[in-house]
Amino acid sequence: MIHYKDKLAKGSWVTYRAEIKVLDCTVRDGGLINDHHFMEGFVKAVYDTCVAAGIDYMELGYKASKKIFAPDQFGLWKFCEEDDLRRIVGDNPTPLKLCAMADAERTDYHTDILPKDQSVLDCIRVAAYIHQLPTALDMIKDAHDKGYETTLNLMSISVVHDNDMAEALEVLAASPVDSLYIVDSFGSLYSEQVRDLTLAFLKAVEGTGKEVGVHAHNNMQLAYANTIEAIILGANRIDATINGMGRGAGNCPMELLLAFLKNPKFHLRPVLECIQNVFLPLQSEMEWGYQLPYLLTGMLNQHPRSAIKIRASDNPDDYVGFYDQVTEKE
Amino acid sequence: MIHYKDKLAKGSWVTYRAEIKVLDCTVRDGGLINDHHFMEGFVKAVYDTCVAAGIDYMELGYKASKKIFAPDQFGLWKFCEEDDLRRIVGDNPTPLKLCAMADAERTDYHTDILPKDQSVLDCIRVAAYIHQLPTALDMIKDAHDKGYETTLNLMSISVVHDNDMAEALEVLAASPVDSLYIVDSFGSLYSEQVRDLTLAFLKAVEGTGKEVGVHAHNNMQLAYANTIEAIILGANRIDATINGMGRGAGNCPMELLLAFLKNPKFHLRPVLECIQNVFLPLQSEMEWGYQLPYLLTGMLNQHPRSAIKIRASDNPDDYVGFYDQVTEKE
Repeated sequence: MIHYKDKLAKGSWVTYRAEIKVLDCTVRDGGLINDHHFMEGFVKAVYDTCVAAGIDYMELGYKASKKIFAPDQFGLWKFCEEDDLRRIVGDNPTPLKLCAMADAERTDYHTDILPKDQSVLDCIRVAAYIHQLPTALDMIKDAHDKGYETTLNLMSISVVHDNDMAEALEVLAASPVDSLYIVDSFGSLYSEQVRDLTLAFLKAVEGTGKEVGVHAHNNMQLAYANTIEAIILGANRIDATINGMGRGAGNCPMELLLAFLKNPKFHLRPVLECIQNVFLPLQSEMEWGYQLPYLLTGMLNQHPRSAIKIRASDNPDDYVGFYDQVTEKE
Repeated sequence: MIHYKDKLAKGSWVTYRAEIKVLDCTVRDGGLINDHHFMEGFVKAVYDTCVAAGIDYMELGYKASKKIFAPDQFGLWKFCEEDDLRRIVGDNPTPLKLCAMADAERTDYHTDILPKDQSVLDCIRVAAYIHQLPTALDMIKDAHDKGYETTLNLMSISVVHDNDMAEALEVLAASPVDSLYIVDSFGSLYSEQVRDLTLAFLKAVEGTGKEVGVHAHNNMQLAYANTIEAIILGANRIDATINGMGRGAGNCPMELLLAFLKNPKFHLRPVLECIQNVFLPLQSEMEWGYQLPYLLTGMLNQHPRSAIKIRASDNPDDYVGFYDQVTEKE
C-alpha cells in the first residue's frame, strides 16, 4: 500500500523523540473541580505515580493570591506554600520536576513566588488570556530572574483572532519564556485547527530554543487526538492528567498518552495502578470527564461554565433543555 | 496567522459536502452487546430518531444464518426477517434508507436475502475479513443482482498486510460493490494510519463512482477523531451510533458526528432527546463505551474480546491484573 507520509510529521512510528516531555497537571486542573480540597494522600499518590511512570513534570497547583482567594475556602493546592509542598515531596530527590501555575492578575507573584534557591519548585507556569500579555510578560521575567524555568500558557486560544495571535507570538518569542503552550480551554478545537496553531507556534519559536506545548480539554472527545496531532507536528511539551481528571470534560488522559509515546523511560503500569486504587474510589465524590453538555459548549466555542453548572444541578442529564438554552438566539 | 491548509483536505470549514452520507448502526453494533435482544420500542425509537435527525441510512441488524445462530438464543435483529422489520418501519415512507449486515460465512444469503422488490431493505452490507474476500464477492454479486445497494466492510483492517490490502482493493474496485468501508474492528488505528488507509482506498476507487466509508471503534478514545480524519480526506460514507453504543468501547458517537457536519439537513436535537429518554435508562442494564481495558487491547492491536470478558467479570476494574495478563510474554 502506498504510504502518503505526512511531510510535516516529525519522527516515525517505530522510533521516539527523546525531546518530548510529559507534564502531569492532575492536581492543578483537577483542583478546579473541588477548589483544591485534595487530601495530602491523594497528592502524594499522584507524585509517587509520576516518579514511577517516568513523567517529566508535575504541577501541584496554583500560586494564587490570598487577597483574592480566601484561604479558608480553598485547599492548600490553591496556594502551594513551600511547607505544604515539602510535606509531600520532601526535597524531591527525583528526576521529576515540579511546577506551580500562576494566573495573570490573580497572583501576588512578586512576593509569593520565592527565589528558586528557596523553593522545591522548578518551573512556574504563567497562565494568561491574550489581553493579559503585558502582565504575563512581567510574571515571566520575575520567575525567570528568580531562577525558574517558565512556560506561558495562552488560554482560550480558540477565541483569539489571527492577527492578535501573530503579534503575541512575536512578543513571546522575544521574551525569556522557555515554552509556549497552546491551551484549548473550551475544548473546541478540531485537529486541523490544532495543526494550524502548532505550526504557527513552531514557526514563531524557530531558532529561539523555545519549545511548543499543548494542553487540551475533552469537551468534544478530542483531547487525546488533538494532543497526538500536536505531538506529530513537533510539540514537545505535553500536558495530561491521570484518568483525564480536570475541570469539566477533563484533559488528555495520561494513560492514553503514555500508551502512545514509545520512549522506554515511560511506564504505563504505575498509572493504571493509581487509577485503580486512588481515582476509581474518588469517582463517587467528584465528577470529571466527557458528558454531553460539554459537547454543546465545545461545539459553540463557548467556555464550559454553563455545562459545568448543569452537571451540578438537579437535572444534569437534561440535554435537550440545555441544548435549547445554549442555542437560544439572543 | 498563516494557515497551513492541508492540500489533501476536501472542502472547507464554512461549507459542507452534500455527498457525505451518515449511517446509523446502533441497533446492529449495539446488538452485539445483548445478542440483539432489543425491545421493539427501542428499535422504533432509533428509527424515529434517524428520520428526525436527517440521517441517511439505518442498519437494523444482521441477516445471520439460523443454522449457525439458534433463533431461541438471539433477538429478532440478528435475523432481520421481513415481517419483523415491517412491524417497526411499515413500508418505510421516509428518505431514510435501511440496511442489514451479512457476515461472510455466517449467512445463508442465497435464500435469506429476499429480492429487493420483496423487501423494505435498501442496502446489504457485507462484512468480511480479508481471507473471506471470495465469499464476500459472491455475496456482493448476489445482493447486487437482487437489486440492492451494497457495501463491503473490510474488518480488522489494522492487521491486514499492505500487499494483501492492495490486491483486495484491486479486486473490490472491479466488483459491483457501491462502497468500500475501512473497519477498525480493534479500535487500534491512529489518525496517521487512518489517513494512509483512506487515501489508499480513495485511490483504488478513483473513477469507479464507488465511495469510501469508515467505521471506527472507540477503544483508544479515537473513534470520533479518526472518523473526522477520514471525512476531511474524502470518505463520504460514515458510520456512527447514538450515544456511541456498540460492542466493547463502542463506536463514533452520532451526536459528535452531527455536531461536526454542517449540512443543514442534519439535526442534533432529536439525537439528544433519544439519548436522554431512551439510552440513559439503558445504561444500568448494558455497558458500552470506553473503559481502560479497551485501551490496552487497542494499544496492542488485539481483538477486544479479552477486555470485554474482564468487563463482564467480577473484577471489571482490575486494570493492573488485566495489563499483566495481556502483556505477558508467551
